[in-house]
Amino acid sequence: MKFANRINALKPSAIRAAGKLIASKENCISFAAGYPAAALMPIDEIKEITTELIEKEGTTALQYGMTKGYQPLLEEIIKLAKEKNIDCTEENIQVTTGSQQGIFLTALAFLDKGDTIIVEKPTYLGALSSFTPFECNYKGINADHEGMLMDELEEALKTEKNVKFIYCVPNFSNPTGKTWSLERRKRTLELAKEYDVMILEDNPYGEIRFSGQEVPSMKSMDTEGRVIYLGSFSKILFAGLRVGFTIANPTITNNYEVLKQGIDLQSNQFAQTQIAEYLNRYDLNEQVKNIIEVYGEKRDIMLDIIDNKFPKSIKRTNPEGGMFVWLDLPEGTDATELLAKSVEEISVGFVPGGSFFTEPGYENTVRLNFSTVEKEDIVEGMNRLADFLNKELK
Amino acid sequence: MKFANRINALKPSAIRAAGKLIASKENCISFAAGYPAAALMPIDEIKEITTELIEKEGTTALQYGMTKGYQPLLEEIIKLAKEKNIDCTEENIQVTTGSQQGIFLTALAFLDKGDTIIVEKPTYLGALSSFTPFECNYKGINADHEGMLMDELEEALKTEKNVKFIYCVPNFSNPTGKTWSLERRKRTLELAKEYDVMILEDNPYGEIRFSGQEVPSMKSMDTEGRVIYLGSFSKILFAGLRVGFTIANPTITNNYEVLKQGIDLQSNQFAQTQIAEYLNRYDLNEQVKNIIEVYGEKRDIMLDIIDNKFPKSIKRTNPEGGMFVWLDLPEGTDATELLAKSVEEISVGFVPGGSFFTEPGYENTVRLNFSTVEKEDIVEGMNRLADFLNKELK
Repeated sequence: MKFANRINALKPSAIRAAGKLIASKENCISFAAGYPAAALMPIDEIKEITTELIEKEGTTALQYGMTKGYQPLLEEIIKLAKEKNIDCTEENIQVTTGSQQGIFLTALAFLDKGDTIIVEKPTYLGALSSFTPFECNYKGINADHEGMLMDELEEALKTEKNVKFIYCVPNFSNPTGKTWSLERRKRTLELAKEYDVMILEDNPYGEIRFSGQEVPSMKSMDTEGRVIYLGSFSKILFAGLRVGFTIANPTITNNYEVLKQGIDLQSNQFAQTQIAEYLNRYDLNEQVKNIIEVYGEKRDIMLDIIDNKFPKSIKRTNPEGGMFVWLDLPEGTDATELLAKSVEEISVGFVPGGSFFTEPGYENTVRLNFSTVEKEDIVEGMNRLADFLNKELK
Repeated sequence: MKFANRINALKPSAIRAAGKLIASKENCISFAAGYPAAALMPIDEIKEITTELIEKEGTTALQYGMTKGYQPLLEEIIKLAKEKNIDCTEENIQVTTGSQQGIFLTALAFLDKGDTIIVEKPTYLGALSSFTPFECNYKGINADHEGMLMDELEEALKTEKNVKFIYCVPNFSNPTGKTWSLERRKRTLELAKEYDVMILEDNPYGEIRFSGQEVPSMKSMDTEGRVIYLGSFSKILFAGLRVGFTIANPTITNNYEVLKQGIDLQSNQFAQTQIAEYLNRYDLNEQVKNIIEVYGEKRDIMLDIIDNKFPKSIKRTNPEGGMFVWLDLPEGTDATELLAKSVEEISVGFVPGGSFFTEPGYENTVRLNFSTVEKEDIVEGMNRLADFLNKELK
């Protein structure tokens, strides 16, 4: 039994390791998840839709469909894109099994062994899971509160060989919660054009903004078909249905469709029908408003305790949306060791941030999630963590 | 914009081309599909299950779950496997988005550029869609009514370089409907051991046997973890839910799980819950019995007209199950040209078989589907085709 060489590149997931550790301790308050809040799903609505769907369209909704996607869903996606000033037609869209599959399709379509991907430091771990099997190289770019540092990005584009694309989550990123400024987005587009590389703009959290002004997507400013945009219904409707989409130029989209035939023939037809009917019948903005209200309150509770009770040596990001806050602990701190001790002593879990980087040296970082934890548990868990860190980081 | 080299290997699908041509003609009777019969889906049962599911478990069934698969579904798969004498535990199983994704995972886990896959002549076109992006080579092996010719297989294993696995659909294959004999299965296992290659045993149709005796799967006789077995609920329950699974040794299964994180994080959680609950609550054998009865009658009608009215120069396979019959037309006949004429003149469609081979020279072959066509349409369409072929092949 000889696996492909790419198998040697695979690494066990640090999030999963943290998750296992936390699950092993009873009644642990966990800030480690990456899930949306289940309580905010529109369950009554989906129940109504689903029952009717089986009655009226069961034999088509439960049958094979087109690889590209369910026609009425494509139309709903076009409408949603237009609301965000992304002009597209069906030939630009491929339905995917979550936006995760959009990342994988991009890797499969673009990456030869030894190609380079430019990523933000830190970046979405799941994207690395999609890219790494293709035996690519990474160039990580430092970021401040406005996004990637443009000088560093330009230098990388100048010097790195075989750069295929820049990958980023410009709204409320996983793991940091940071948002890119308009200026950085425009400049990234310019640089991508100048150095002839693609941009993979991953936007699973974009709708969930609590504060500040919406910033236009790079895709909405893309005049040359250079941006591949990824969207998802996982964070605003139902993660378990795994419905996402790519918006890209027709040549890319056509290649995605052909590649997807080999990957899984098509995404779940029933789920596509459920989502399409939800979008047709209900106001998605109302649903998003509910999420924003609850997540915003949760974020405020979390930030308040960090600001008032955590050691002053800890720095945090300032998420205007999404599900995560990011901490920089003092240099030399090992967050993985802290996690083990925190779970053991105070029954509080989080994700050590080191594995969100493509190189070592960032073991002093932490990702905290606020979407899945109940408000009272955020208060309790963050207070415990404050005491713990004040003791440990002395 | 520079795609990966693998994009150059992609080919437009011949089935899709045939489908487009057929769809362009109004009221065409099509034997070109690869779908199960929608009318045989247990719609009332799935309605009951689904409604209760949303009420009782909506927030977990619509939420993210484990990459490996939904726990109760894993348990149901283990039970089904045991009924077929495949001894397995959870560590052997990965849930996939249809068995198509099991093929893709195998390609991703095993294939380096230039590796060779041994396939039956002809083979499942969708498998080639999974393999081809990995820039592999194919070695096609001729087959008779008992399966691959073992002398040819051994010669190939002796002479071909970097053979990673033998791919086959040993029960009621797509496209031919043929079934491998027990002797050929045993010998293939021996040869795989002797030459140290894996076997990818794809069994999406295995349950749907109308006549003859069940033949044990290679997986059930596999003592060394050399067989990767693919199963699916698409042909016996709901194709649109896209639920399949792999059964393999734990090392392979673990790699599939890690790779799947990058591909799509996990298969649709809701669909896994629907299928698990169906299997828990209802007798799958009853459902399969319904399918067997209807498909068996349809096959009989189709074979009867071939045997009694088609030109004697046409040879057919003798499917004991599944959804397809295969025709060898006289050498020199071009089935693609015939299709165009048949659609135009008699409004009957089929799939020309040439593209199910990894090399040219088989343009005189045809795949006929009987699962989706109503009985009276089979009679009408096959009678038209008989007259047409008697005229064309004179």
